[in-house]
Amino acid sequence: MNKKHNFSAGPCILPQDVFEKSAQAILDFNGIGLSLLEISHRSKDFVAVMDEARAIVKRLMNLNDDYEVLYLGGGASLQFVMVPFNLMKSENGKAAYLDTGVWAAGAIKEAKKFGSVDVVGSSKEDNYSYVPKDYTVGSEYDYFHCTSNNTIYGTQMKSFPKVDTLMVCDMSSDIFSRELDFSQFDLIYAGAQKNMGPAGVTLVVVKKEILGKSGRDIPSILDYSQHIAKESMYNTPPVFPVYASLLTLQHLENNGGIAAAEARNQAKAKLLYEEIDRNPLFETFCKKEDRSLMNVSFRLLDESKKEAFDNAWKAAGISGLNGHRSIGGYRASLYNALPLESVQVLVDVMKNF
Amino acid sequence: MNKKHNFSAGPCILPQDVFEKSAQAILDFNGIGLSLLEISHRSKDFVAVMDEARAIVKRLMNLNDDYEVLYLGGGASLQFVMVPFNLMKSENGKAAYLDTGVWAAGAIKEAKKFGSVDVVGSSKEDNYSYVPKDYTVGSEYDYFHCTSNNTIYGTQMKSFPKVDTLMVCDMSSDIFSRELDFSQFDLIYAGAQKNMGPAGVTLVVVKKEILGKSGRDIPSILDYSQHIAKESMYNTPPVFPVYASLLTLQHLENNGGIAAAEARNQAKAKLLYEEIDRNPLFETFCKKEDRSLMNVSFRLLDESKKEAFDNAWKAAGISGLNGHRSIGGYRASLYNALPLESVQVLVDVMKNF
Repeated sequence: MNKKHNFSAGPCILPQDVFEKSAQAILDFNGIGLSLLEISHRSKDFVAVMDEARAIVKRLMNLNDDYEVLYLGGGASLQFVMVPFNLMKSENGKAAYLDTGVWAAGAIKEAKKFGSVDVVGSSKEDNYSYVPKDYTVGSEYDYFHCTSNNTIYGTQMKSFPKVDTLMVCDMSSDIFSRELDFSQFDLIYAGAQKNMGPAGVTLVVVKKEILGKSGRDIPSILDYSQHIAKESMYNTPPVFPVYASLLTLQHLENNGGIAAAEARNQAKAKLLYEEIDRNPLFETFCKKEDRSLMNVSFRLLDESKKEAFDNAWKAAGISGLNGHRSIGGYRASLYNALPLESVQVLVDVMKNF
Repeated sequence: MNKKHNFSAGPCILPQDVFEKSAQAILDFNGIGLSLLEISHRSKDFVAVMDEARAIVKRLMNLNDDYEVLYLGGGASLQFVMVPFNLMKSENGKAAYLDTGVWAAGAIKEAKKFGSVDVVGSSKEDNYSYVPKDYTVGSEYDYFHCTSNNTIYGTQMKSFPKVDTLMVCDMSSDIFSRELDFSQFDLIYAGAQKNMGPAGVTLVVVKKEILGKSGRDIPSILDYSQHIAKESMYNTPPVFPVYASLLTLQHLENNGGIAAAEARNQAKAKLLYEEIDRNPLFETFCKKEDRSLMNVSFRLLDESKKEAFDNAWKAAGISGLNGHRSIGGYRASLYNALPLESVQVLVDVMKNF
């Protein structure tokens, strides 16, 4: 069976060799006569996986040893809780959050259980169709939290504010997709299941010096310092997702790193946005200046054509194009592993429609 | 290369067909032309996996609809935190814990961050060489917590006390290994990476009526009720570990269920313990009456023979026999998927030594 053109919003397409190598590792890992799934996480073969998975992130992000890299279970949603537990002061704790979509709002909701939260900018009243830019964040806050890319609405922060406190960013849906000065962040987290692997593991990159200052008695499993002390093996890590993430990042490094991925992502996004802008049948949900390179959310101006359009893209072997259930329409996710050819197939369907 | 005899304490051996079917699903899942790793967790193919993975647990445990089954990320260590968050009262909360090993002690340490904890029984002073039995638990406690099997020392609870409060059990290392009246428990949790799958997912079985009574403002991702309301899809689940767990439980169900697994486990344990008792070179760490069917921890009486014994079992193709670093010696883990033949190979090595 031919591979489909997979525009799924996540879990999403990964490089084909990640599928092949990870399947092989399940049958026999490193030629040791055992499956990756049945070896101890403290065996030398898996410790080498974890060590390299942590090291490659620092190389790709060009970060120094002020930062530590962790692979944790529980999803990015658990980070909505771990961030305030570790960073919001127990006495008069106060954090600033930017509200750019339902995931940002989810992070805000959880942080409020730990202290005072100021939403310094929000586009909620405009259906999250843009990224607020007119705000400042002073030193009265324990940290500032933002979401770099908003999958549902197809918006993305093109630049990050200078803030007078710690800078925390949820990069779940655009990590490793574009060059950034990653040292402007004090804590970055990302669920793996977009650009860096399958579901089941979450990346945390944290500047060590910011930890241990919240004054809270943090449960051990939620304490970044405990995970750092145990080199991301405080408890049994999600072995397979970590290994598949390493394979994904090795593929990225072997194909020109983030710079080359960004160039490919720019080309894919340009191709699709140009067709949407040219074609009178379609429009995006969001403002042009905030358009995401990762998720192109768009809709038909004439909803009566929906069935015909759906039949057309499905007939072309396209999968995963339906928009999020909260806003409908379509969402073409152009994650790192999606080839330009798949975007061309979609654009051809739109042109011929 | 021949398969090794894998006595690893966890992650551990799984049925061979779990390796084969899960590797195939990574290349092409259900013949849909996509990898299991690249499909949405909300696609009908994966929703069917999650639904069946939840249903099969209830069938195997013979539990009715008073119970809900969840597959969560974060490991059993996260349950050390979720249990008190959900069950220990915010006002004058008080729980009873049984201290039977380092994992039980870990659960106790975390619970103390939420309220008052009484250790109603402990064998710590005797190096956890037995399971305390002489205690009662009254209704003044919000719940009682125990650990059914202690991998490091090779002890196992052969029966469970009648308590006058909620009964919570960490069954990480012996779940699905023996028949039990599972309805005597109000909450059971287990990291998957022993008898029910690869690392990266944790099973929670909970009686619905016990939830929502702690009076705490629980972070959403740590709230069992939220996970139940979303049918174990509150956030993106660890897709691959859940699928491999389902395959493992299907293998169990197709091979006689828990009763047949227990008979196989009894035969394996009998073979090995009889050799240890017969052979003057070896002894177990723990009292006979509390010996585990899952983990046979033993040592050489004469430590000077260690190198020779290590060479002997390694030459026989045995792997994962070293004891936990905290007590040394040897640990033969006899989880469900370990064949009797592997135990026979080990026993032959011991006989000939």
